[in-house]
Amino acid sequence: MRGGGISWVKGHGTENDFVLLLDPDGHLELSRELVRAVCDRRAGVGGDGVLRVVRSAADPEGAAMADDAEWFMDYRNADGEASEMCGNGVRVFARHLLDAELVAPGPLRIGTRDGVKDVRFDADGHITVNMGAASLPGPADVTVSVGRQSWPATSVSVGNPHAVVFVDDVAEAGDLRTMPYVGPDGAFPDGVNVEFVSELGGRHLAMRVYERGVGETRSCGTGACAAAAAAAGRVDGGPPLVYAVDVLGGQLTVTVHPDGHVDLTGPAVLVASGELLPQWLISVVPTAFVRTPGG
Amino acid sequence: MRGGGISWVKGHGTENDFVLLLDPDGHLELSRELVRAVCDRRAGVGGDGVLRVVRSAADPEGAAMADDAEWFMDYRNADGEASEMCGNGVRVFARHLLDAELVAPGPLRIGTRDGVKDVRFDADGHITVNMGAASLPGPADVTVSVGRQSWPATSVSVGNPHAVVFVDDVAEAGDLRTMPYVGPDGAFPDGVNVEFVSELGGRHLAMRVYERGVGETRSCGTGACAAAAAAAGRVDGGPPLVYAVDVLGGQLTVTVHPDGHVDLTGPAVLVASGELLPQWLISVVPTAFVRTPGG
Repeated sequence: MRGGGISWVKGHGTENDFVLLLDPDGHLELSRELVRAVCDRRAGVGGDGVLRVVRSAADPEGAAMADDAEWFMDYRNADGEASEMCGNGVRVFARHLLDAELVAPGPLRIGTRDGVKDVRFDADGHITVNMGAASLPGPADVTVSVGRQSWPATSVSVGNPHAVVFVDDVAEAGDLRTMPYVGPDGAFPDGVNVEFVSELGGRHLAMRVYERGVGETRSCGTGACAAAAAAAGRVDGGPPLVYAVDVLGGQLTVTVHPDGHVDLTGPAVLVASGELLPQWLISVVPTAFVRTPGG
Repeated sequence: MRGGGISWVKGHGTENDFVLLLDPDGHLELSRELVRAVCDRRAGVGGDGVLRVVRSAADPEGAAMADDAEWFMDYRNADGEASEMCGNGVRVFARHLLDAELVAPGPLRIGTRDGVKDVRFDADGHITVNMGAASLPGPADVTVSVGRQSWPATSVSVGNPHAVVFVDDVAEAGDLRTMPYVGPDGAFPDGVNVEFVSELGGRHLAMRVYERGVGETRSCGTGACAAAAAAAGRVDGGPPLVYAVDVLGGQLTVTVHPDGHVDLTGPAVLVASGELLPQWLISVVPTAFVRTPGG
């Protein structure tokens, strides 16, 4: 922190963008109001979410992982709610740790609410994260509908639920201004993300995604993993299958391993760094927002 | 500039938001590509436009105004095009000059492509700019249509063209996803901004605006001036008329003077300051972007 403000960095992975708040020693009380104000695209800095960068040992939720991962990603959605993991976010988080020389090049482990994640810096500048298992557990016979059109869909879990529809052309999904209907009723009691995927040949996919509660987005890391897992089907033995997934915001690569776990690879770009101005912070969050050290 | 990057400040006036690029000595070559990249809300910093902050004497377009206005507002729309003036932008520009102690409190003159503008810092923290004449020159018998509904409209010029429709409730305009039709054909060869205005009583207006080429926006300074001028009608003598104009992004105040000129008053908030990272700049604008001093 400089001059009473809060230091931050903005970055994106395939145009899924984040404001990283730099809080190595865990002094920042990150209220819902502050997250919402920071993520506001006109009255704040703007982003899909906030990634608080804190040493695991200095955070109540990260402390249990401190022996395994020096840094903890405290991820909040733009609505202010804490969230578990984000495949594009953790790659941007890793980019910052490397560029700020907070970690050495080489394999890296990052603590998240979904446990410790393995991250790798690739020679071409991309960053890869092991996203864990992408499983095809059913429910079987899922149907996705937009207007009068309906398609059969594949249900995939990548920690969160997805319904993947294969179409000849992703334009078939229309303007996606509203959530597609996913049936049968009750199949996804917590909601579901919907991917429209077209196979371009040679393990090259085009994808559009409607994220539950958000709308169509430029990119979705778990959605890309779900699309590749659905395209691969159940993998039993054999070599890993590598998929290029075109999203609106760029291209991701998903590697589907025989044991069912998936690696997500792609660019992670830092755009700007700076400071939230103290007078703005006071205007949006009048109550105290900085924890006293050890508090 | 620090570390080879470009220093900037982000601010907004009633949620019309801008990235101010700090270039006092005129070293920055502001290409369309750079403006578009900076204004990109996901892959850049994000904003409705860029305001380059340069001493008038150090800028080819500002030099003629240098005796009258120390600072020149080089305003670019998010699409990269140079633009003349922006009522919310010039107030944010003035806020930065004051907060950065580049000017003293008190009356201020700012150079723009639309000439020198008079700006005032009000005691309540708001900032007022003299927007010049708001005139009601016709064409008469303008009609605005959305779907099957049509309304008579008042044509107002505030430097740029406006068609102001009075409605009982601004919700009557619908979702405004597309440009309303403004007739008769050919009445506005350069296009027109459309305001839907409801009179709440006591010179209090609610307004929604569709900006030509942009869509519905959170706020529009000239639109608020056009709405107040249309509500006031032709003012001949008598005291100035003061209108409160509610926009989606907050509230503006417009004072319609007997001679036809209008003052625009409202908040101007700085959110964050920082630096565009050199490696990002090189990735988005590979060609040289910094003019050598004197170049």
